[in-house]
Amino acid sequence: MTAVLKPKDENVVWHQHSIDKAFRSNLKSQKPAVLWFTGLSGSGKSTVAGALENRLAQLGYHTYLLDGDNVRHGLCSDLGFSEQDRRENIRRIGELAKLMADAGLIVLSAFISPHQAERQLVRDLLPEGEFLEVFVNTPLEVCEQRDPKGLYKKARAGEIPNFTGISSAYEAPQNPEIDLPAGEKTLDELVELCIDALEKRNILAN
Amino acid sequence: MTAVLKPKDENVVWHQHSIDKAFRSNLKSQKPAVLWFTGLSGSGKSTVAGALENRLAQLGYHTYLLDGDNVRHGLCSDLGFSEQDRRENIRRIGELAKLMADAGLIVLSAFISPHQAERQLVRDLLPEGEFLEVFVNTPLEVCEQRDPKGLYKKARAGEIPNFTGISSAYEAPQNPEIDLPAGEKTLDELVELCIDALEKRNILAN
Repeated sequence: MTAVLKPKDENVVWHQHSIDKAFRSNLKSQKPAVLWFTGLSGSGKSTVAGALENRLAQLGYHTYLLDGDNVRHGLCSDLGFSEQDRRENIRRIGELAKLMADAGLIVLSAFISPHQAERQLVRDLLPEGEFLEVFVNTPLEVCEQRDPKGLYKKARAGEIPNFTGISSAYEAPQNPEIDLPAGEKTLDELVELCIDALEKRNILAN
Repeated sequence: MTAVLKPKDENVVWHQHSIDKAFRSNLKSQKPAVLWFTGLSGSGKSTVAGALENRLAQLGYHTYLLDGDNVRHGLCSDLGFSEQDRRENIRRIGELAKLMADAGLIVLSAFISPHQAERQLVRDLLPEGEFLEVFVNTPLEVCEQRDPKGLYKKARAGEIPNFTGISSAYEAPQNPEIDLPAGEKTLDELVELCIDALEKRNILAN
């Protein structure tokens, strides 16, 4: 029973952590990154992130898209919408994105994430250059006019407390890596802007 | 401003969710799975899981290993070691593993996870056949003899409350997909047993 858990050949040095981020990224022929989409409700975060994931995946990149659908019902199902819970929600998503980047993936996330401090917290989790803030910069008037889920109407009627842009502040990114004029462009054009920016930053090959 | 977020060609049907688990798995030429290692402290969970990940990655499979090192300091850094917190810890790891499998990865996890109910909870998160319980079946005496971190000694001295196997129950898997006699085999042999089992279950190509 004494030889257990030892390689047969003792001369083989066993590196438990030899499969690391670099190995997993190389296997995927890509650089890991976290593309953090932020913007008002109705700004088009999920739509643009989804279209970009589609484009990247078609090009052969290994991606994953985090959004309310796959996070709120599972990992964060114990959280509500208080300030504290919303902060914890973003913290967990940041840690999740970090692990997925560690797995070598290009991660896209689409959450309002209205506070500068929480976005900075996620940025600080990742190595320099791996976190890219993507500001889906659609004016409030346009978002409210679209109002795809009728939430602005309810918020204006006072039925939703702390609604970002109406009764709660949205702190716009001061220096986002990608600034998308999402009120003025088509979806194809917005995806193209993202692709160009990712190529310029050497996340994608030219 | 009305054409925003629409594809230029309205005849192009835009499927936001066309990049799904099947697409991401096919891109990696593999079937996603969660290999859930369970066993006593000192049983060899992390060592076997690490060695298996190494082998799988060398074979070109896309993997990720979840363990205390990368989870407890990040995603679950707010949790302690009370029964409730330990349960929440496993729940989050289960949800995390599910998302990573959704990304098309072969996920390995190495946590004591002593309770049948919590392992069942994770199993129930995943499609039939995608969760594989790997019982690192090392007798308590062997684990205690190894005592790599000196924890059993402290537990016997009453310095660690609720220590699994000493003052807290370990509920052994009743019907694990893989049962590893880890007190009697070398590391290479244990990895080989895992590979064989994964081939038989068509997780890996023969």
